[in-house]
Amino acid sequence: MKQNVLIIGAGGVAQVVAHKCAQNNDVLGDIHIASRTLSKCEAILESVREKDAMKQEGVLQAHQVDAMDSAAVAALINKTGAQIVINVGSAFVNMTVMDACIETGAAYIDTAIHEDPTKICETPPWYANYEWKKRDLCAEKGVTAILGAGFDPGVVNAFARFAIDEYMDEVKSIDIVDINAGSHGKYFATNFDPEINFREFTGVVYYWEDQQWKEKQMFETGHDWDLPVVGTCRAYQSGHDEVHSLATNYPQADVRFWMGFGDHYINVFTVLQSLGLLSEQPVKTAEGQEVVPLKVVKAVLPDPSSLAPNYTGKTCIGDLVKGTKDGKDVEVFVYNVADHKDAYNEVGSQGISYTAGVPPVAAAMLVATGEWDAKTMKNVEELDPKPFFSILDKIGLPTRVQVGGLDGEDKAWNE
Amino acid sequence: MKQNVLIIGAGGVAQVVAHKCAQNNDVLGDIHIASRTLSKCEAILESVREKDAMKQEGVLQAHQVDAMDSAAVAALINKTGAQIVINVGSAFVNMTVMDACIETGAAYIDTAIHEDPTKICETPPWYANYEWKKRDLCAEKGVTAILGAGFDPGVVNAFARFAIDEYMDEVKSIDIVDINAGSHGKYFATNFDPEINFREFTGVVYYWEDQQWKEKQMFETGHDWDLPVVGTCRAYQSGHDEVHSLATNYPQADVRFWMGFGDHYINVFTVLQSLGLLSEQPVKTAEGQEVVPLKVVKAVLPDPSSLAPNYTGKTCIGDLVKGTKDGKDVEVFVYNVADHKDAYNEVGSQGISYTAGVPPVAAAMLVATGEWDAKTMKNVEELDPKPFFSILDKIGLPTRVQVGGLDGEDKAWNE
Repeated sequence: MKQNVLIIGAGGVAQVVAHKCAQNNDVLGDIHIASRTLSKCEAILESVREKDAMKQEGVLQAHQVDAMDSAAVAALINKTGAQIVINVGSAFVNMTVMDACIETGAAYIDTAIHEDPTKICETPPWYANYEWKKRDLCAEKGVTAILGAGFDPGVVNAFARFAIDEYMDEVKSIDIVDINAGSHGKYFATNFDPEINFREFTGVVYYWEDQQWKEKQMFETGHDWDLPVVGTCRAYQSGHDEVHSLATNYPQADVRFWMGFGDHYINVFTVLQSLGLLSEQPVKTAEGQEVVPLKVVKAVLPDPSSLAPNYTGKTCIGDLVKGTKDGKDVEVFVYNVADHKDAYNEVGSQGISYTAGVPPVAAAMLVATGEWDAKTMKNVEELDPKPFFSILDKIGLPTRVQVGGLDGEDKAWNE
Repeated sequence: MKQNVLIIGAGGVAQVVAHKCAQNNDVLGDIHIASRTLSKCEAILESVREKDAMKQEGVLQAHQVDAMDSAAVAALINKTGAQIVINVGSAFVNMTVMDACIETGAAYIDTAIHEDPTKICETPPWYANYEWKKRDLCAEKGVTAILGAGFDPGVVNAFARFAIDEYMDEVKSIDIVDINAGSHGKYFATNFDPEINFREFTGVVYYWEDQQWKEKQMFETGHDWDLPVVGTCRAYQSGHDEVHSLATNYPQADVRFWMGFGDHYINVFTVLQSLGLLSEQPVKTAEGQEVVPLKVVKAVLPDPSSLAPNYTGKTCIGDLVKGTKDGKDVEVFVYNVADHKDAYNEVGSQGISYTAGVPPVAAAMLVATGEWDAKTMKNVEELDPKPFFSILDKIGLPTRVQVGGLDGEDKAWNE
């Protein structure tokens, strides 16, 4: 049993996490939020108060911290009495925040792999580059660390585990499909910080097939997926964190990730990339000014947080898992559908931030109740998915299943 | 009879002008070239010497001058003894260079309207904004000033005059079509300085119809033109200098300009413009750096002068002129086809610079022989086109005619 949460970060996902922690503070206890910019934390707390989101009276506090400074984070953990840290700060702070948790004994939860700010894109083995090097230390000290507990990675890892455990003797393939069928009404925008968003697609696409790593170019392989609610959507094979951990835990399965892109998005992306405007290397103007093109592109694009009020439509994220049961082929599609407008009405965020921010709060609740308080480092597929789904059902992201695959009968996961 | 030429400017067009002046220095006398950057002038003279372009032994000299400083230009005219100034510097120096000519009595020739560097795009009445205000002064002082003597404006004005004089009692419409069917082999590039090039298409399209100015948006009206040599090409109605002077001299005719664009060019342009990356207004990056997006786009695009060696294909620029003769409808297409590779082999430049740079040299030769030494200010359609075509035939840009319009019989203009 652990209590009191410290949220690291104050972006769009942190806002969802704060709202959801507040809505469940009977389980979670005190809620603290900290980032480099105190005013951003205060704006989030203001939005929590506006929605009257606190389930019961309790502590709700903002703090300033440099999350790259492990000692400062440890001091804040001690000062606040937080036993659970939800890290939704930038991808560059994972290891310093994790170190602070190991130092203080607090449970650590994040939603994406650590990245080195000097690299464009991390290469496999991803988790093994940084996080997994601390696994033995976590085990030794009895520190709970749950890696990649957003939606993807996170819920999709639990989807895979559930499909395999419930429906298969043997798994053959896991295809994770992430479709945002919503519309923000702008000519073009990214759903997260453009600097991070574009990075995902400028590198090589790594995937796991025939028990080995393979490589593709981005947008090399597209597939039309006929999905529940959102209909037929085109998605392209992309690299993603969870391919690594799932390939490690299910090495016999092919593991691929598919991200949905419209033709318009791909066109704009292709023009910008082909011209060199997504480069992180500075160029010199005729007047001699040194400029990083990507930072100028970011400056002209809409602020992702400005998209939420007018965002409409739905997301559909799921796993198509194939395997065998009693010698027969089986296919199961496990998925969730979320609605942008509902997300905005509930927590003031768009659906992409909502799907990323709700799951780490469910994980924190399971740490608080002890069900996921593993006392070591775990990826999500190494934990029991059922209590996770039970909480997600209640706090906004219900899990559904189509047994027989995309054409299969549709039902709730626990029907 | 005038002698000795001073070329202002040291860009791609100035290189063509220098080569062509050298090739005709028996008519033109001493050749001087001046720009802000002496080394650029010297590089051009070096390329003239490499091609052994001087027709006969003579003066060929480079000078440094700030063409925005009228007194400095006048001093250089006096020092060099130049009686003819060919201004192919930036669009911002027309008036200071013209003032220097009026001051010294030298003939003035340019290839495009004056622009104010603080405006994105000049609005009609174009020539009347700056140049024509000096017309009376030129007449009073007996100074020859030939405006817009490149290809378009320039040769296309002569095409119109020729078609009307030779084939019509009355003119009804003049459609100028400019097609570059060449390929530079790059993903995307502009043929001139991107800052100037994009300006032409970010403003309103002004045209003359029903004896009044009308307006359109860029890329609003496209038309497939079936042209000699280059075949069917799509062109879009655009604004252009010569529409103004032709509309003034032939107010009874509709006057339109059409620029050829491929779908790829339009797509890249549209993406950049829609995102705000063609803006001349500075934006601020997340790090607080002030940057003009257009200058960054310019920095990542290929240097236009780097395109010449690999440029292949042809240009076709012509006027479709419609009118009546003896009460019957007549159509005449007057045009030139130029070849990028030939241009590079002859003068080290691509075809777009070649078509812009050869005509002002032909005009200078006509000033030298006295045929176009008008002792006042003239647009090209106000001068006899036949001696102009005769020289252009000999120095690289032959004029052809299709009587009956685009389906008409093809012949040389003087056959």
